[in-house]
Amino acid sequence: MRLADWGELGLLDWIRDRAGAAKKRGLVLGIGDDAAVISPQPGKKLLFTTDTLAEGVHFDLKYATPYQLGFKLASVNASDIHAMGGSAGFAAFELTAPATTEKRFVERLFDGILDGLALYGAVLVGGNVSGSRGGLVLTMGLLGYAKNPVKRAGARPGDGIYVTGPLGDSAGGLEILQKMGKPVEIEKGKRAKMGGLSWADMGPLLKRHLIPEAKRPPKNATSMIDISDGLFLDLARVCKESRRGAKIYEDKIPVSDELRNAAKALDLDLFALWSAGGEDYELLYTAPKGKGKDILIGEIIPSGLYLVDREGGERPIGPSGWEHFGYPSP
Amino acid sequence: MRLADWGELGLLDWIRDRAGAAKKRGLVLGIGDDAAVISPQPGKKLLFTTDTLAEGVHFDLKYATPYQLGFKLASVNASDIHAMGGSAGFAAFELTAPATTEKRFVERLFDGILDGLALYGAVLVGGNVSGSRGGLVLTMGLLGYAKNPVKRAGARPGDGIYVTGPLGDSAGGLEILQKMGKPVEIEKGKRAKMGGLSWADMGPLLKRHLIPEAKRPPKNATSMIDISDGLFLDLARVCKESRRGAKIYEDKIPVSDELRNAAKALDLDLFALWSAGGEDYELLYTAPKGKGKDILIGEIIPSGLYLVDREGGERPIGPSGWEHFGYPSP
Repeated sequence: MRLADWGELGLLDWIRDRAGAAKKRGLVLGIGDDAAVISPQPGKKLLFTTDTLAEGVHFDLKYATPYQLGFKLASVNASDIHAMGGSAGFAAFELTAPATTEKRFVERLFDGILDGLALYGAVLVGGNVSGSRGGLVLTMGLLGYAKNPVKRAGARPGDGIYVTGPLGDSAGGLEILQKMGKPVEIEKGKRAKMGGLSWADMGPLLKRHLIPEAKRPPKNATSMIDISDGLFLDLARVCKESRRGAKIYEDKIPVSDELRNAAKALDLDLFALWSAGGEDYELLYTAPKGKGKDILIGEIIPSGLYLVDREGGERPIGPSGWEHFGYPSP
Repeated sequence: MRLADWGELGLLDWIRDRAGAAKKRGLVLGIGDDAAVISPQPGKKLLFTTDTLAEGVHFDLKYATPYQLGFKLASVNASDIHAMGGSAGFAAFELTAPATTEKRFVERLFDGILDGLALYGAVLVGGNVSGSRGGLVLTMGLLGYAKNPVKRAGARPGDGIYVTGPLGDSAGGLEILQKMGKPVEIEKGKRAKMGGLSWADMGPLLKRHLIPEAKRPPKNATSMIDISDGLFLDLARVCKESRRGAKIYEDKIPVSDELRNAAKALDLDLFALWSAGGEDYELLYTAPKGKGKDILIGEIIPSGLYLVDREGGERPIGPSGWEHFGYPSP
């Protein structure tokens, strides 16, 4: 059997079974959440996460500048730490790059990494560089702190389900980039043109995809995850870990005007964008109703996973979203 | 300018300049050593390191089994933690693999990772899986503890220079593998044949290259590094950081009988193997003379870097060893 058939979720479940039994003093939470929780001493808890951006999978150099890649790498890692209710602290960066990579490219990459880390109050403390015979692979490890880590498990029936911002923007930005077929240096204030779409609509969507910012964690969350693989899939993860169900309301899902305009102009499937478009890096959390400060989109129920559509009909929803290995490899 | 011209050392120096100025509470030691040192609270210190194995650069699937890759990844990371005088604790593993990768391959890879981590008392607590359009990239992040981290800086004139075991074995093992052109499942007790060389000689050299074990750190070290890029280069690093020089004696360098026999049989350059052959993962450390428990190969002097040859002649030595990007990329 190949990875393409096994699937990302199958592999992740297997890893968790295989490695999850390990116990060690100081280990509070191991595999299966946004970050591990380690408590070397009573008191503050440390969060530990790693994330990779691989050329041809997470990014395409046709659409992204090196600065954007570096910034995004810092953000996706910080987002995992924030999704545990923590703050980022110390990063290591592992660069795997072909020997033909331009010095200037690497300099801009680090500019993005360091600007991103600085935004989250984190510093770069280590890493390595390696040659690559294939494409570029960027990996970051990030350590953070949390007083009370918030897990995916913990949602209780009756809790409200909140998201910190509009969904689908990043996937919309990616659609625009793919149609344009060239990078835009938005970090330098550069703009781009595209028929039928104003910069006022394009700009925010491109920014959400190219240089996303991790959201700060809320107080009072009973469970939390960052939406990196799409609302339905990440909500399903929270429900699975919490052993609960959820009901969300289509008319409460926050969708930006920019995304609506872009979907109309480019004939995009708006439903697919907000429900399964990945890389929004908004936080999805549960909290006692009224205790969440963000956008309420539904509530936790004992079991089942439902979308209440605009007509009031309840539709069961399956976990659809981005899955690695689900494409043919060259 | 391209990475091939900039060079690994040029790039690393630049990164250190670019990121090294950052200060943060709890940061004890940042970029430039085997691991970063972080002290979230007074008391125990945390060590943080990452390492990558990239297909076509660090390994070739023609010569290595997935079990061996996993085990080695755990060892090279543990070696960095040990080289700071610490013990390994918590690991994250980032798998970047083509969708065509066999499930069985991934299972054996994790067997190796978990066996390796268990050897060092560490557990896997997180990570990710990603698709790859190029080759396989394996990255591990590892957190460890140390009461008193030992840096590269700290060697004092008069200190003895010690190594924990024979040098060049790993490079010798690689030469054998490249001549054989096929993997050997030594982890399952399998053997291989090669004209002119006995298994008694081949076996230990292959093991040193394919499933190396990180050495435990000594007490009383004033400075320390693990020999991953060759004796001359890694000794030069200790001297640079300590702002001291070193004199080592050719007749004191530990070289195994197996390597001598292999070098004779295969017509290999024994000097190149022990002086610049990488991936031995022996620890090189300095300590007050008589306080080191391992093999004494020389002493720290105020400045300069010299090899005293068998005839008593002093030869200046330059940092030669493995450097990434120093080869043409496809």
